[in-house]
Amino acid sequence: MFAPTYLDWNATTPLDPAVREAMLPWLDARYGNASSRHEYGRQARAAIDEARARVAAALGAHATEVVFTSGGSEANNLFVKGAAALKKPALIAVSAIEHPCVREPARQLARQGWTLREIAVDAQGRIDAEDWRAVLAGRPALVSVMLANNETGVLQDVAALAAEARAAGALFHTDAVQALGKMAVDFRTLGVHGLTVSAHKIGGPLGAGALVLDKRVELAPLIAGGGQERGLRSGTENVAAIVGFGVACERALARGAAEAERLAALRDELERGLAAHGAKLFSAGAPRLPNTSFFAVEGIDGETLVGRLDRAGFACASGSACSSADPRPSGVLLAMGVEPVLARGAVRVSLGRDSTAEDVRGFLGALGRLVDELKNLTAMAV
Amino acid sequence: MFAPTYLDWNATTPLDPAVREAMLPWLDARYGNASSRHEYGRQARAAIDEARARVAAALGAHATEVVFTSGGSEANNLFVKGAAALKKPALIAVSAIEHPCVREPARQLARQGWTLREIAVDAQGRIDAEDWRAVLAGRPALVSVMLANNETGVLQDVAALAAEARAAGALFHTDAVQALGKMAVDFRTLGVHGLTVSAHKIGGPLGAGALVLDKRVELAPLIAGGGQERGLRSGTENVAAIVGFGVACERALARGAAEAERLAALRDELERGLAAHGAKLFSAGAPRLPNTSFFAVEGIDGETLVGRLDRAGFACASGSACSSADPRPSGVLLAMGVEPVLARGAVRVSLGRDSTAEDVRGFLGALGRLVDELKNLTAMAV
Ligand SMILES: Cc1ncc(COP(=O)(O)O)c(C=O)c1O
Ligand SMILES: Cc1ncc(COP(=O)(O)O)c(C=O)c1O
Repeated sequence: MFAPTYLDWNATTPLDPAVREAMLPWLDARYGNASSRHEYGRQARAAIDEARARVAAALGAHATEVVFTSGGSEANNLFVKGAAALKKPALIAVSAIEHPCVREPARQLARQGWTLREIAVDAQGRIDAEDWRAVLAGRPALVSVMLANNETGVLQDVAALAAEARAAGALFHTDAVQALGKMAVDFRTLGVHGLTVSAHKIGGPLGAGALVLDKRVELAPLIAGGGQERGLRSGTENVAAIVGFGVACERALARGAAEAERLAALRDELERGLAAHGAKLFSAGAPRLPNTSFFAVEGIDGETLVGRLDRAGFACASGSACSSADPRPSGVLLAMGVEPVLARGAVRVSLGRDSTAEDVRGFLGALGRLVDELKNLTAMAV
Repeated sequence: MFAPTYLDWNATTPLDPAVREAMLPWLDARYGNASSRHEYGRQARAAIDEARARVAAALGAHATEVVFTSGGSEANNLFVKGAAALKKPALIAVSAIEHPCVREPARQLARQGWTLREIAVDAQGRIDAEDWRAVLAGRPALVSVMLANNETGVLQDVAALAAEARAAGALFHTDAVQALGKMAVDFRTLGVHGLTVSAHKIGGPLGAGALVLDKRVELAPLIAGGGQERGLRSGTENVAAIVGFGVACERALARGAAEAERLAALRDELERGLAAHGAKLFSAGAPRLPNTSFFAVEGIDGETLVGRLDRAGFACASGSACSSADPRPSGVLLAMGVEPVLARGAVRVSLGRDSTAEDVRGFLGALGRLVDELKNLTAMAV
């Protein structure tokens, strides 16, 4: 199989081999419904309990605060819609750069009588302090601000925002899907009511995610039924995926700050090369994830460049994966006030566990050639 | 590992080896977000398309009618709550023996202004004809009646019910989770608006299910976000699980009626033995799945018997897995008018692909011994 260099770790990640090892028995002789009370069921239940402890440990949470879901999108919908369902319609505020799986459930609430307010970000993609004060003055019932953005990698000061939102009487949720595995994420330190994570972004499998939830917060379940996950998420538990998620969390915790430093060094090398090729880096002045570079080369279309890079053997993205089919420029960049023509040039490179200096150099070489080619084409067309 | 004889195939099933083979590459080198436009993403997308065609083929549906979810519980919630969200509160009718993942979302609607009506069943567990007429006279907006019950295995005449409900102006949904793989299930012949299936009940993996949906029916998504699955189910697709679901459907289709006959013969042998041990079979007079026997031995507690059987090396259930932690007798049996004291004796044996005549004979032998033991205990206690 043709195996291009994978530079799209924010979209999804290959399974960590240790995760795969841990999962395989659950795809073989160790089947069993975790609610069954026979030997097979008890073993499945014990494996889920162990995974829950591992996920909790990686997040500085208590195991009883971890609600397993099918992924990050479900966990975000569960918090936003589950909390709203038990309140009278009021104000919900979400940042202007949230992932669609926070933004869209918030829009659904807006169709059901809620008032939806987007919180503005500045030119670097950080929450705008003035707009934030205005939002709080409106006394929102629910607030969701992501810890790290999937496109730019920009971090928000969630601990401070959560403290202020709580003081103003709001329930505060953060989407930490992109943060986990790339920086320390601690549920207590952040002081949020709910926090979303997803296994497949950290070397775990597709099919598992979690909402870490303050026990004092009541939610209506999104998926009601057999009463699994303390009644907050029914459905036969995906044992193999949950086991894999637990091991992926343990591995991420073990790699820790050393891996973040390694990635940051690679990323810095990448960004020096990008600058040399005349690329403009988005959010360069903000605190960012160590693995993500979002940039554009003026006059070159991002989609075109990503397509050429793909054929040259480098898999990266023109923005978030789930908006890949959407021809509009990145909403994150537009919210930052980036000109649409420049935003259309956006390319995202996101590094991970297996990324090497060779990958970065190979990518920069290919990018240099392709930028020259595409610039010549444009020059000829003029 | 201690490997008891597995007689709980309605709770979950071991992975079909062919399914596992098909999944493994997707847990290895073939990672990739199906929305990504590079090589990895395109391969994932193609695999999902192929799986969708396979699931559709097994159900007599068109591929574009298949909406992948994380499982049966999610698909049931999606139909019930998704359809209701776009209607004004009205009457919803669900049978008195639905799985909790239909009943509970219907109860959630009842808390939001809907009127919930349970459709009565007769002593055999079939929809009561008179009550059905009364329900239709009430002009329900939504109706859900399961094709096959998970505890008794009783089948409903869904094609006839759906035709009448449609004629009365209702949207009709059926939960076919237990039917698939054990009998022919044809979306067109059934004439329903929505039909739920789940991979892990047919030799496929946990983590995949589907709602087959008439294209003319509009639903609000339960999980909103990136817009996957035609906007009806957002979240990065679980490629491995979906691929496995496709192969499991293909295998179920290939096994077809021959496997149902094989299971029915085993089941008949089992039930002859049960009768010889003085067991009372529930729903004996109704059309049933070929693999399910639900019975009680008078004077013997079901939980106790199942626990003893487990230690003797036979994994079966005292009812549905997800109510295993619930000490109340089966709601399905109570709806059929079974006396609570007899209902407390309920034991379910459900056979599957790997079940053999030896399994059945071994089980009957153990059951005979345990029943004698428990009866002696009771006699001594008196
Ligand atoms: C910031 C963010 N939140 C949520 C999600 C959704 O997670 P999942 O793919 O597990 O549904 C993603 C990725 O898709 C993401 O990048
Ligand atoms: C009849 C029926 N419907 C729905 C479900 C739920 O399916 P899942 O476990 O895939 O969520 C089950 C089994 O748990 C079932 O037996």
